[in-house]
Amino acid sequence: MSLLVVGSVAFDDIETPFGKSDKIVGGAGTYIALAASYFTEKLGIVSVVGDDFPKEMIDLMHQKNIETDGLQVKEGEKSFFWAGRYHNDMNSRDTLVTELNVLADFDPVVPESYKNCEFLMLGNLTPAVQMRVIEQLPNRPKMVVLDTMNFWMDIALDELKAVLKKVDVLTINDEEARQLSGEYSLVKAAKKIIEMGPRFLVIKKGEHGALLFNADKEVFFAPALPLEEVFDPTGAGDSFAGGFIGYLAHTKDISFDNMKRAIIFGSAMASFCVEKFGTEKLQNLSQQEVDERVQEFIDLVQFDISLVND
Amino acid sequence: MSLLVVGSVAFDDIETPFGKSDKIVGGAGTYIALAASYFTEKLGIVSVVGDDFPKEMIDLMHQKNIETDGLQVKEGEKSFFWAGRYHNDMNSRDTLVTELNVLADFDPVVPESYKNCEFLMLGNLTPAVQMRVIEQLPNRPKMVVLDTMNFWMDIALDELKAVLKKVDVLTINDEEARQLSGEYSLVKAAKKIIEMGPRFLVIKKGEHGALLFNADKEVFFAPALPLEEVFDPTGAGDSFAGGFIGYLAHTKDISFDNMKRAIIFGSAMASFCVEKFGTEKLQNLSQQEVDERVQEFIDLVQFDISLVND
Repeated sequence: MSLLVVGSVAFDDIETPFGKSDKIVGGAGTYIALAASYFTEKLGIVSVVGDDFPKEMIDLMHQKNIETDGLQVKEGEKSFFWAGRYHNDMNSRDTLVTELNVLADFDPVVPESYKNCEFLMLGNLTPAVQMRVIEQLPNRPKMVVLDTMNFWMDIALDELKAVLKKVDVLTINDEEARQLSGEYSLVKAAKKIIEMGPRFLVIKKGEHGALLFNADKEVFFAPALPLEEVFDPTGAGDSFAGGFIGYLAHTKDISFDNMKRAIIFGSAMASFCVEKFGTEKLQNLSQQEVDERVQEFIDLVQFDISLVND
Repeated sequence: MSLLVVGSVAFDDIETPFGKSDKIVGGAGTYIALAASYFTEKLGIVSVVGDDFPKEMIDLMHQKNIETDGLQVKEGEKSFFWAGRYHNDMNSRDTLVTELNVLADFDPVVPESYKNCEFLMLGNLTPAVQMRVIEQLPNRPKMVVLDTMNFWMDIALDELKAVLKKVDVLTINDEEARQLSGEYSLVKAAKKIIEMGPRFLVIKKGEHGALLFNADKEVFFAPALPLEEVFDPTGAGDSFAGGFIGYLAHTKDISFDNMKRAIIFGSAMASFCVEKFGTEKLQNLSQQEVDERVQEFIDLVQFDISLVND
């Protein structure tokens, strides 16, 4: 197993200024796995759904070489459901409904066939659940990436800090980096967070791009692609994480230079994600579309300066 | 004359979470000219001050090869004065005092020796004053850059639109681009604004960097340098504009590729500006410091991706 992805597989009902999605498949694990599937050959997911979850979506995962032996299906129970409404600026949203359902007492079980995974992506979930996955792996993966959110900083900070000591990369947004560190400057925040355990920190700034910091105070910045329309931001951060870890798992190269490339591939997958409701755009991309999108990122930021004084 | 800079030369009194500046020299024209002086050989300023303006600052301008024949000194009058207080996030501020003084009836006079300028930078001022400068030039400069702000969109939109038809590059921030175009998406906003006259649009996003758009729908993005501390953001946009136009005036190359380089040099000057109160940091930089800062920008964004499929 090259990559193990842990994260929610669920239903969303999303309202944006452009329309309403009705009940569609979402969840961090779904976005991560779909985005990563464009890069990895062997990918397995650990999650839980109810018996209301559509078989077609599981079939689609199989088509994308996403193994679902670790996807528990709870008979007579319902899948996690979230409904939300985005404001006009698309940067803020109101949660209308959160029904935990099967996620309330989710006990992740890593199948034997996943246990030797080389890369582990822990999508946003209770820190205790994330920890239980790490504990089931007999050997430490080459790289463990953890995503989390402000909610867990509010109600489970100690558990979060414990799991931070076990991971290589943390991905959070700018406000969360400020909350976790108590520092407004993202440079200072990164320094403090890296002292908490992870050797690398990715700060996701949404439409303003992403920053990658390492313990040697190196920093890399990738912009978000300026788009005509952001149709639905749901899952953008997870798609980013999926492209990032998928590219690393594919190349098996965890040098800082290769992590920079992974950030660009992650940004490309996030830029696709927001162009349609839910996972629609991530379901049917061609290799050529991915390459063309990455080329747009290259064109967006590359410049040529010679610093020889004249 | 290589570059003509028009803009306020004034006093500021700035309060940030880090302290209080008391009354110091500021003004868009001052920041632009100082930042540009690191690149251009021949640079002249058109502005107005009262007899309260310190001779030492004018001497400093001369040391930096900034000609002041176009700087009117009004006897018995006072220089423009602005006082403001930044909030903790440094992204928003309250204006405490605005005393227009000599700026209230400023009638710009371009000296004969400036009239053949190759590059013209119109700093933020009444659009009618910006227009009067353009009208005094017998030949159109190679490139005219205009900076403005939401205030003029509110009270002098027609005059602003008239002057927009006369310029090559407009520099505004993201909120102003949205206000001027009526579009939330910056890509759509850029398209509409470029239809208003300027062939190029620079959208300044403060700590989130800057975007350069052209009429062929090409786009370039430069980040802001992630800094440990932003000490005083006053003048950052003007320092950006000064570095940008100064580099273009020095290289005399207005290709899109060279404008990308100019954006990076502008971003470098802005990053220096915010490290101290007012113009302090821009007064004494070495060529080596500028080069090292630009190298930091290169390191921040450059990556190497081969898109050959394997």
